[in-house]
Amino acid sequence: MSYVKKPMEIEDRSFDIIEDEMNSEVLKKFSHEELMVVKRVIHTTADFQYGDLIEFIKNPIEKAKKSLAKGIKIYADTNMIKAGVNPRTLKRLNCEIVNFVADNDVIKEAGERGVTRSIVSMEKACKDPNIKAFLIGNAPTALYTLAEHIKNGLTDPDFVVAVPVGFVGAEESKNEFSTMEVPSVVVSGRKGGSTVAVAVLNAILYLVDNER
Amino acid sequence: MSYVKKPMEIEDRSFDIIEDEMNSEVLKKFSHEELMVVKRVIHTTADFQYGDLIEFIKNPIEKAKKSLAKGIKIYADTNMIKAGVNPRTLKRLNCEIVNFVADNDVIKEAGERGVTRSIVSMEKACKDPNIKAFLIGNAPTALYTLAEHIKNGLTDPDFVVAVPVGFVGAEESKNEFSTMEVPSVVVSGRKGGSTVAVAVLNAILYLVDNER
Repeated sequence: MSYVKKPMEIEDRSFDIIEDEMNSEVLKKFSHEELMVVKRVIHTTADFQYGDLIEFIKNPIEKAKKSLAKGIKIYADTNMIKAGVNPRTLKRLNCEIVNFVADNDVIKEAGERGVTRSIVSMEKACKDPNIKAFLIGNAPTALYTLAEHIKNGLTDPDFVVAVPVGFVGAEESKNEFSTMEVPSVVVSGRKGGSTVAVAVLNAILYLVDNER
Repeated sequence: MSYVKKPMEIEDRSFDIIEDEMNSEVLKKFSHEELMVVKRVIHTTADFQYGDLIEFIKNPIEKAKKSLAKGIKIYADTNMIKAGVNPRTLKRLNCEIVNFVADNDVIKEAGERGVTRSIVSMEKACKDPNIKAFLIGNAPTALYTLAEHIKNGLTDPDFVVAVPVGFVGAEESKNEFSTMEVPSVVVSGRKGGSTVAVAVLNAILYLVDNER
């Protein structure tokens, strides 16, 4: 069967197609680095609507690059995100991704309080001073909890990827978060997800790699 | 802050909203069980277009339920899929998900042959007679390779979730696969992804759980 089998050729062709088909107004709206993030999200979802939904608040790419260079701990709200982020670049930068939703203490406490594990897991994350970045691809309750902790001065992240998905609270939590002036990449509306969170961070990691 | 914090309430409300907003023609098109799969995919992506894109070929849900009950090995083309599938139900059914894209022998051979790791990893999977199901959420090259092996009689899966995403080969590989009469859930067009593959399998696992 005849099809493209070379990985770099597939990736290059994909990005060419994405650029060709993107709305020219959308292309003009973003900086070069922002566009690398937007294109990678479209590459991951095959959904051009992300060109209209992604917002960059308070220079998040520059902040993220500086933060990642320090070798930080990053909290992700799903194990899928943890599994999807490029392990080689993370390791080279001495960064680590953590997630606590499957921890026994988190499961127990969430059951007792009748709240999502995402809430309890985020509370645990906000107590760790080495966690300087948050990737939220799934749970609006995680983003609400993070917002509360930031407002109360309990955590002060270098950057946040705020892309929870869904029908109950996702849009509202992101609308609220985007007014908070935290360096962040936000997908407005209902869309988002773990693959979107991964695409955003991987795009930034590739920018870091290209500066070597 | 006031927002819904109870996990089952969030899930129930989400599915109510999805059903309310789904096109009535789409709702009528599917069986009850198929609809559970379609709704979970929409829940995962917040993208109603999946109602038009998902195809069920050769009774895949019934086949999958029977196959899973036997305690099978499942091949997933990404570690994100492996991380996202409900581990409790899998364990209870004595099923296991495997993925070889990060194996040293796969990385080495892919580099030498100048092909994607997805191809080499899928070739390895097709040699394992205990792998009776395939979830492809990322790489069209994995789906092409699987299709070749099925045509050549080298593997005969109980069911396939064929939802690779992207701009180079995704649509073509799925179009071809959907003509092969393999029990499968296919997302036509460019869309799909690891979260979609996870949503399909988790929906089927919940159907199995509900029959206990």
